[in-house]
Amino acid sequence: MINAIDFKVESREGEARAGLLTTRRGVIETPIFMPVGTAGTVKGIRFEELESTELDARIILGNTYHLWLRPGIETVEVCGGLHKFIGWKRAMLTDSGGFQIWSLGALRKITEEGTEFRSHIDGALCFLSPEISMEVQAALDAEIAMAFDECAPGKATKEEARRGMELTLRWAKRSKEAFERWQSDRTASGSDWLAAEGSKTNEKAGGTPALPVGQALFGIIQGGSHLDLRRESLERTIEIGFDGYAIGGLSVGEEKSVMLDVIEDVAPRMPVDQPRYLMGVGTPEDLIEAVARGVDMFDCVLPTRNGRNGQAFTAHGKLNIKNAQYATDQRPLDQDCGCSVCHRHSRAFLRHLYLSGEMLGGVLLTHHNLAFFLDTMRRVRQAIRSGQFANFRREYTEQLVR
Amino acid sequence: MINAIDFKVESREGEARAGLLTTRRGVIETPIFMPVGTAGTVKGIRFEELESTELDARIILGNTYHLWLRPGIETVEVCGGLHKFIGWKRAMLTDSGGFQIWSLGALRKITEEGTEFRSHIDGALCFLSPEISMEVQAALDAEIAMAFDECAPGKATKEEARRGMELTLRWAKRSKEAFERWQSDRTASGSDWLAAEGSKTNEKAGGTPALPVGQALFGIIQGGSHLDLRRESLERTIEIGFDGYAIGGLSVGEEKSVMLDVIEDVAPRMPVDQPRYLMGVGTPEDLIEAVARGVDMFDCVLPTRNGRNGQAFTAHGKLNIKNAQYATDQRPLDQDCGCSVCHRHSRAFLRHLYLSGEMLGGVLLTHHNLAFFLDTMRRVRQAIRSGQFANFRREYTEQLVR
Repeated sequence: MINAIDFKVESREGEARAGLLTTRRGVIETPIFMPVGTAGTVKGIRFEELESTELDARIILGNTYHLWLRPGIETVEVCGGLHKFIGWKRAMLTDSGGFQIWSLGALRKITEEGTEFRSHIDGALCFLSPEISMEVQAALDAEIAMAFDECAPGKATKEEARRGMELTLRWAKRSKEAFERWQSDRTASGSDWLAAEGSKTNEKAGGTPALPVGQALFGIIQGGSHLDLRRESLERTIEIGFDGYAIGGLSVGEEKSVMLDVIEDVAPRMPVDQPRYLMGVGTPEDLIEAVARGVDMFDCVLPTRNGRNGQAFTAHGKLNIKNAQYATDQRPLDQDCGCSVCHRHSRAFLRHLYLSGEMLGGVLLTHHNLAFFLDTMRRVRQAIRSGQFANFRREYTEQLVR
Repeated sequence: MINAIDFKVESREGEARAGLLTTRRGVIETPIFMPVGTAGTVKGIRFEELESTELDARIILGNTYHLWLRPGIETVEVCGGLHKFIGWKRAMLTDSGGFQIWSLGALRKITEEGTEFRSHIDGALCFLSPEISMEVQAALDAEIAMAFDECAPGKATKEEARRGMELTLRWAKRSKEAFERWQSDRTASGSDWLAAEGSKTNEKAGGTPALPVGQALFGIIQGGSHLDLRRESLERTIEIGFDGYAIGGLSVGEEKSVMLDVIEDVAPRMPVDQPRYLMGVGTPEDLIEAVARGVDMFDCVLPTRNGRNGQAFTAHGKLNIKNAQYATDQRPLDQDCGCSVCHRHSRAFLRHLYLSGEMLGGVLLTHHNLAFFLDTMRRVRQAIRSGQFANFRREYTEQLVR
């Protein structure tokens, strides 16, 4: 495999780790939260805001399924890859499309070869396989690509979970093979424009070690809520060999305690010197609990989706801005939050915007929520590095009004 | 009347004027474009952006009708007026609600006393009169309030236009009387918190002349496309006496040449030492043509509304981002535009956002359009001040692809 990322744990406190993830687009401190940019945009927020000191998102997600259907991979390729197409210069990770197709439910049909489904845009019959997902992800050219997997429902029986896990393993092998073909094609053709850009930067910087080149590929661990399956999935995925490992198939309908049990069992068994990514999870408190169990990377639609739906995350828990109690409430969403929304706007105004169906309502709540998630992770990293994570975790939990 | 604004023409070129409009919230260079913030938000753009050097909007509009219905005037009052409620510290102008009710069409009934109409939100029966509009505008507390008027359709007969003009004159008188009562009540009660704030600032600044206090009221000239009615409306509105004068009832269905003829006839007859405001007009080229005829202030929903609908304004004319020709077009919306959207994003990406129904599409097109309108007016002011307006106007018109 090409050494496409570098990962180093710098501090530990219990299972919690603070580290550095290096991609060809620079160094990312972990644990990290990745805002979700499904269709090439983190919904409702400008890239300038994501890059600002206030949010400072170092890596965002793109989605293979959505971008493949629209604008289509030819468009992205003509425009020089996903970064150039959307105008984002920092790191990206692309999901494989497996989960999104899974979430289509009745619209899909899974076979050994791949997944047949109907487009959510126009109902057209489409087919995605490990090979196609890798082709699409090579064209999108994010720093981290994900293996094509199949997710079992949260309450899957052991038999269902094993079937999904075995299929995911076979697909993981095919994903890796296809991925490596695309990577060596690229190396052979010398078409890695960013590697070239990277070397120039490194030359200028003198003694700085060269950044990695190319894309990394992460494998995904499945197995539902069955710990023995999870362990087997982990071992056999490691045997295939990836640049990092993700825990998939959580937060899909199972109890929260079940999710935490799986993370607690699996995360500490994952390779210590490689990044551990918990997919699609969760609230700020979920993130803290998963960090305590050894996870390094997260993505979740909660700050953006819930923001658009009028829900704010605060240090004291969730706040539904549509509630009548906020009609003349001149306080900010969160009195301890340092974000530009809390600095300027009252709950009363945000409620007015939301009730009036004004775009700015979603824009401002999204901004606050992302600021809150990203700031929480910044505080998590500082806490681990200063050996105060256990205190931080206790205090954070205590001030939550559930 | 209280001296609530100060206006001074500093340069002239033909009928075009460059001047300074001073309100209690600082000095505004004219000619000026005012972004429309109907419900207390300029749709899709954050106040931080409006205040940025790039846009630098010095005054925005609020709407009496919309804010009166929602969130309601009690809410705005409890929150300390419209500025405090929404978090905007620069100048504002509130429209009287007359035009918005007029645009409801069949839902309204006009009597001598005022206008009965059904709320566009819940269908409730409402009644707005000059007195109520002034009460609401006093509570909103914008720097400039507008008299309550009745607008005749663009193709109104002379009889219809005269009836509307006469009613508008009677309402103008009632508006002024009611407005003055609210202003003297405020002065008597010493409740002008901003005047107090203003004096503090002025004390600090030492010899700087004190900013005006209180609100200004503008009268509105009606009379449809009938020049004799327009002249009569102007004379009799001046007799009543206002802080500034607006040309209403244009861009409501009449031909563009008719609109320009009315402006050309009326604007030069308006008081030279008071601001002249053309309501609800228009495209950048309309603005330039109206400036050439002596207008100082403009508002229009075009940059925001058309932006949300996928239309960009450029130096070469309008651009519909949904057109297939932009699918892989990597150029910015306008190659000569210095705005942050043109700096970063391609037509291909903006088209993708628009077709995907992504909020960011509307946000970015709105930003570009406002930047384009505000920059055009900046160039208009510079041109007048340097005696180059005639050249600027010719060059601007020549490069437009209609």
